[in-house]
Amino acid sequence: MTALKNDRFLRALLKQPVDVTPVWMMRQAGRYLPEYRASRAKAGDFMSLCMNPQFACEVTMQPLDRYPQLDAAILFSDILTIPDAMGQGLYFETGEGPRFKKVVSTLADIEALPIPDPQKDLGYVMDAVSTIRRELNGRVPLIGFSGSPWTLATYMVEGGSSKDFRKTKAMLYDNPQAMHLLLDKLAQSVTSYLNGQILAGAQAVQIFDTWGGNLSAAAYQEFSLAYMRKIVSGLIREHEGRKVPVILFTKNGGLWLESIADAGADALGLDWTCDIGNARERVGHKVALQGNMDPTVLYAKPEAIRAEVGRILASYGSGSGSGHVFNLGHGITPEVDPEHAGAFLRAVHELSAQYHA
Amino acid sequence: MTALKNDRFLRALLKQPVDVTPVWMMRQAGRYLPEYRASRAKAGDFMSLCMNPQFACEVTMQPLDRYPQLDAAILFSDILTIPDAMGQGLYFETGEGPRFKKVVSTLADIEALPIPDPQKDLGYVMDAVSTIRRELNGRVPLIGFSGSPWTLATYMVEGGSSKDFRKTKAMLYDNPQAMHLLLDKLAQSVTSYLNGQILAGAQAVQIFDTWGGNLSAAAYQEFSLAYMRKIVSGLIREHEGRKVPVILFTKNGGLWLESIADAGADALGLDWTCDIGNARERVGHKVALQGNMDPTVLYAKPEAIRAEVGRILASYGSGSGSGHVFNLGHGITPEVDPEHAGAFLRAVHELSAQYHA
Repeated sequence: MTALKNDRFLRALLKQPVDVTPVWMMRQAGRYLPEYRASRAKAGDFMSLCMNPQFACEVTMQPLDRYPQLDAAILFSDILTIPDAMGQGLYFETGEGPRFKKVVSTLADIEALPIPDPQKDLGYVMDAVSTIRRELNGRVPLIGFSGSPWTLATYMVEGGSSKDFRKTKAMLYDNPQAMHLLLDKLAQSVTSYLNGQILAGAQAVQIFDTWGGNLSAAAYQEFSLAYMRKIVSGLIREHEGRKVPVILFTKNGGLWLESIADAGADALGLDWTCDIGNARERVGHKVALQGNMDPTVLYAKPEAIRAEVGRILASYGSGSGSGHVFNLGHGITPEVDPEHAGAFLRAVHELSAQYHA
Repeated sequence: MTALKNDRFLRALLKQPVDVTPVWMMRQAGRYLPEYRASRAKAGDFMSLCMNPQFACEVTMQPLDRYPQLDAAILFSDILTIPDAMGQGLYFETGEGPRFKKVVSTLADIEALPIPDPQKDLGYVMDAVSTIRRELNGRVPLIGFSGSPWTLATYMVEGGSSKDFRKTKAMLYDNPQAMHLLLDKLAQSVTSYLNGQILAGAQAVQIFDTWGGNLSAAAYQEFSLAYMRKIVSGLIREHEGRKVPVILFTKNGGLWLESIADAGADALGLDWTCDIGNARERVGHKVALQGNMDPTVLYAKPEAIRAEVGRILASYGSGSGSGHVFNLGHGITPEVDPEHAGAFLRAVHELSAQYHA
């Protein structure tokens, strides 16, 4: 494999010294970019982009070509590839978000679910990883990812997106055994899926727990964090002679940082509701932190964006090996002006050097 | 005025001893009740219910008649009465939620906003309060309420509901002076509105900061909490020879409980993502706590509801004058079976006596 030309991102995740704070953006390959919209139109739809390794590679590279400041690439894919590979029949309805043809309602439904084999059942993702890795040619590290078991379970039980997770929560409270079996199968699936991505070339992995923050504190521990801990303990942590850092991101999980930091990962993703300086005080001795600008700040003028980046960097503070990866607190949204994203990325590198002196 | 027959709710808010933990439900007069749906059909639509004191009184009383366990009534109204009285033109589109005919976009728009006079511009709310108070005849205390300035501002700037508060956040970051002027006018309006409700008969008031939890930690302090603090300091705190407790509820504000507890209110509302025992350790020496069962637990079977009530009571723990008001962590949803709400309310009284021995 080619040597890595920019390893700032991996170094920061391992709390090693860096020259400036590394930065990437969740959903950086996305609809706010006209070149992405063109690729998507060419491919036909979203899942065709994901399932074709050439297209997935093309859109993964687009933000890197536009923004030389980006310190990491992230596999272009969907979090719902695993339930789809379990036979649930993922499809997208315009304006409706993801839907599943089959819905998981009973213990029998859960017992019948297979655990997908990454090579056989999710080969298109493995191919996308190796294709992107080849194309990157050592420019920046490649991040692999998966949804968390709880987050995947919500889509499988609801049959799609949900506002209040009515069916999933009813199953959790009425039939915890069934829910635990589903989550256990998903944890096994995510573990082998992420290990497949690592073997195919992913140099760090992130678990997106988008909906864990909607659980009660007690239910979060039992139904989301416990399964992420299980996954982390089963991941390949070193590959190609380098550590493979693991990032856990529970949106709205700021109340529970101490217990998330105990789950064995190298870094935690933070949404924008946490004060990142306070988060560093709470768990910075244990893990690196990734975040956490409110993505809607990108709707403001470049000067305001720069001021907010400066505020977050100052809140985090300085120190050699301080372990900060800059990011948004959630994915960049389709209506953002690409020039504003550029102003954000430039500000992170320009304003952060002083904290690494 | 008639003597209060059940003052458990007011006593708990003031951390005075009670026999069992008092309970009420946010949105207890609502669509999950067939009698409410009948009144609404009779009135025509939601705003006709709110604007007619007789109808508002009728639906306020319905849950009390059905559930003898309820320890408080809450004024039936909408949080958007203030922007409507400012001339923004509130209306409801089916399936779309609240909308405003006028949208606040510029400093000039904000400068032109009047501060409503509660008697003249919101007389229908004052009449509803006094009508309900008369009808209650001392059964339980009556809660008045308002939206928080930040929460009201989001609807006024977006022109309705929003997923990411794009325009409001852009104004906050691009033009903080304009946003502060808007919030200051709203804080003045909310103060006199709540004082009007207190003088008309409200025996406690709650400020609903539904969207403050979507702000960054720093922006929350400056753009939401500061204005709630201002309101609290301007409220009438004693009326009819009795203290009038104030409850602040910031949904998703669990990270900031210490600073919210410093804002001068008597009690904090908690959503279900906080562990209530931990919240008591953090701020229970200073304020009473109201909450915090996940409202979706009401979709589960009565036994599961009872178990969750027991878990929350045990987490809060015991003590004379411990200062716990039981509630859901957010409003009850339309699809809940009324029998399940009854099981919830019964469980709170039955299971809590042991903690007040």
